[in-house]
Amino acid sequence: MYNKKMHALGSNRSVIRELFEFGKIYAQEKGADKVFDFSLGNPNVPAPNCVKEALKELIEYPDSTYIHGYTSAQGDKAVLEKVANDIKNRFNVDMTSDLIYMTVGAAGALTITLNALSNENDEFIVLAPFFPEYKVFIASANAKSVVVQPKDDMHVDFLSLTSAITERTKGIIINSPNNPSGVVYTENEIKSLCAILGAKSTEYGHPIFLISDEPYREIVYDGVEVPYLMNYYENTIVCYSYSKSLSLPGERIGYIAVSPKCIEKNNIYYAICGAGRSLGYVCAPNLFQKVIAKCIGATGDIEAYKQNRDLLYENLTAYGYDCIKPNGAFYLFVKSPEPDAKAFSEKAKNYGLLLVPSDSFGIEGYVRISYCVSNDMIKRSLPYFKKLMEEYL
Amino acid sequence: MYNKKMHALGSNRSVIRELFEFGKIYAQEKGADKVFDFSLGNPNVPAPNCVKEALKELIEYPDSTYIHGYTSAQGDKAVLEKVANDIKNRFNVDMTSDLIYMTVGAAGALTITLNALSNENDEFIVLAPFFPEYKVFIASANAKSVVVQPKDDMHVDFLSLTSAITERTKGIIINSPNNPSGVVYTENEIKSLCAILGAKSTEYGHPIFLISDEPYREIVYDGVEVPYLMNYYENTIVCYSYSKSLSLPGERIGYIAVSPKCIEKNNIYYAICGAGRSLGYVCAPNLFQKVIAKCIGATGDIEAYKQNRDLLYENLTAYGYDCIKPNGAFYLFVKSPEPDAKAFSEKAKNYGLLLVPSDSFGIEGYVRISYCVSNDMIKRSLPYFKKLMEEYL
Repeated sequence: MYNKKMHALGSNRSVIRELFEFGKIYAQEKGADKVFDFSLGNPNVPAPNCVKEALKELIEYPDSTYIHGYTSAQGDKAVLEKVANDIKNRFNVDMTSDLIYMTVGAAGALTITLNALSNENDEFIVLAPFFPEYKVFIASANAKSVVVQPKDDMHVDFLSLTSAITERTKGIIINSPNNPSGVVYTENEIKSLCAILGAKSTEYGHPIFLISDEPYREIVYDGVEVPYLMNYYENTIVCYSYSKSLSLPGERIGYIAVSPKCIEKNNIYYAICGAGRSLGYVCAPNLFQKVIAKCIGATGDIEAYKQNRDLLYENLTAYGYDCIKPNGAFYLFVKSPEPDAKAFSEKAKNYGLLLVPSDSFGIEGYVRISYCVSNDMIKRSLPYFKKLMEEYL
Repeated sequence: MYNKKMHALGSNRSVIRELFEFGKIYAQEKGADKVFDFSLGNPNVPAPNCVKEALKELIEYPDSTYIHGYTSAQGDKAVLEKVANDIKNRFNVDMTSDLIYMTVGAAGALTITLNALSNENDEFIVLAPFFPEYKVFIASANAKSVVVQPKDDMHVDFLSLTSAITERTKGIIINSPNNPSGVVYTENEIKSLCAILGAKSTEYGHPIFLISDEPYREIVYDGVEVPYLMNYYENTIVCYSYSKSLSLPGERIGYIAVSPKCIEKNNIYYAICGAGRSLGYVCAPNLFQKVIAKCIGATGDIEAYKQNRDLLYENLTAYGYDCIKPNGAFYLFVKSPEPDAKAFSEKAKNYGLLLVPSDSFGIEGYVRISYCVSNDMIKRSLPYFKKLMEEYL
């Protein structure tokens, strides 16, 4: 009567959703100030002022069709040029507007890219820990996910990666800065990774595409550099979103950029256009295409996330937690003090602490703490983190 | 290397695109005032004032997360309630917010609904003339399109419909007011259609879903009524968009509404949620969810479209064209004076008239004239329509 796979996807409550529902009940019983919701990735830092200024200016534009009408499926021509120039200027890549495709957020960018590339029996590698929807998107493109476990520091385990690549490998998804670990892959790491992909492409006689999902690119700390993958690997496709950099996750605006050095780049781009049609993405939202074009180079207040990171990392480490120090994004990945991260997450709930166990990120034994929350909430939560750890000492 | 089907979808220039490119060249040669582009469905009537007022009010809201953050996948709770109440009040349907799912336009609504319902080998019936992307969306849900030809007046041919339904028929897409014909199905027609679907559901022992694609619902003339299908058939799913009623096609905002009488309505709704995830639609654009909630009941200036319809219909009929009189939408469907509509469209180009031949709408021998253009352009085009017809007299 309906599609069973879709039904299962829609009816399985996510862990995060469960935590949210628990939080509501706990708040009613103990008070809202006793719940510390670290489960969501909804940026708490407001959109930078340029967003409001751009909106104010655009809505006064006399031509309603210009601001609210269809753009071409690829995006508004002037917006495509601004995005291409931004990539050119920041990363020294010979980008042109005909290789940019505006999307309904990074999720839209990923589903379109996967559908554009994938043929039956294709495999895509995902590096744990990973954003759980990758598996959903890969399955919806009729392909298979192959999970590679990380080293203890959440960086790439090259031996495991090498042995995971087969002749069916169509691509790999890289997410750096990483959700959920906060890790930023180093330049050396990227070089090793690209060398492996290059060698395996040659061995199997077909390209292995590098899909770089980078909504957290601008959210980095202590001057850490995030290598631009097109400069290291020819067959790179970047999936970007303004959700985090401009704190606009609900507006669903991002893009796909195909490397100017990508094999058959124009045909890949055509396949992207086709996949966009096929999935029902007529065009990315017009008004916000124009907003981001006016806000190129701006970001929300990244210093606020850094303060949150420092506060959490320093205190949790002092309490005895084993934390991966995040160089980017707004997540702290913490080793569960007991092997079962779900059991640990359950115990944390007794203190009002909502932490996501790592199983859905493809790895066991950790929890993710989203620190895109108020600094005050973190401060108030610290005594509870301390007490929680004391159960294990 | 890439998906061939997606590549074909992305690289096949549409007829409309070809006309657009021709128009650019013709304008350079003969002057922009000598091109009469009737090919596009981009509303020329501006968004009603409430849209601007709503945007102005919302962007002053102090909480950035409220206006730009993620909403739940189904939509903002308050918005879902407003939409459900609107349906309840206007159509006397017992609608509730848990049966509404906000979407990225009608295209998003259709792809999600088709993916939610479809299993392998399922068939969906489309009634010619139809919006060409239906076939793309049905194929992307791994199902098969079955085309039913209309009567000469573009209304439903019930004999053809009856014989097209098989045990594999999962659903039928209805689009009234219709793009491209402008026809509005009458209440009697809807009753007959629903009787057939009901009888065939019983015969084959499974429901046949009625998917009502109705972005043109509010754009009707001369007080014509558009029956609300949930009141005639239990297993109805409405796919709506604010693209045309509020002239916001580029903002990608619409919804799916599952009939409260639909079989296994909650499971269908879960499957819709799952399909939304699977296709990468995280949530419908937040700010425009809130804009449409503030503009419930408003529309653009429908009288302007009526004036265009009257001007075109009366004059073209007087010149000898055989036109389907549109009761809704903003398209005039005109019989080609020669059997080959493509040849007629080519001849029309010699007069700067850009008319879409009907082949891509699933029927031969007609052209579609989009009259969501300025009244002045129509006036200036009339002598050329006259001359064009004189070639055939």
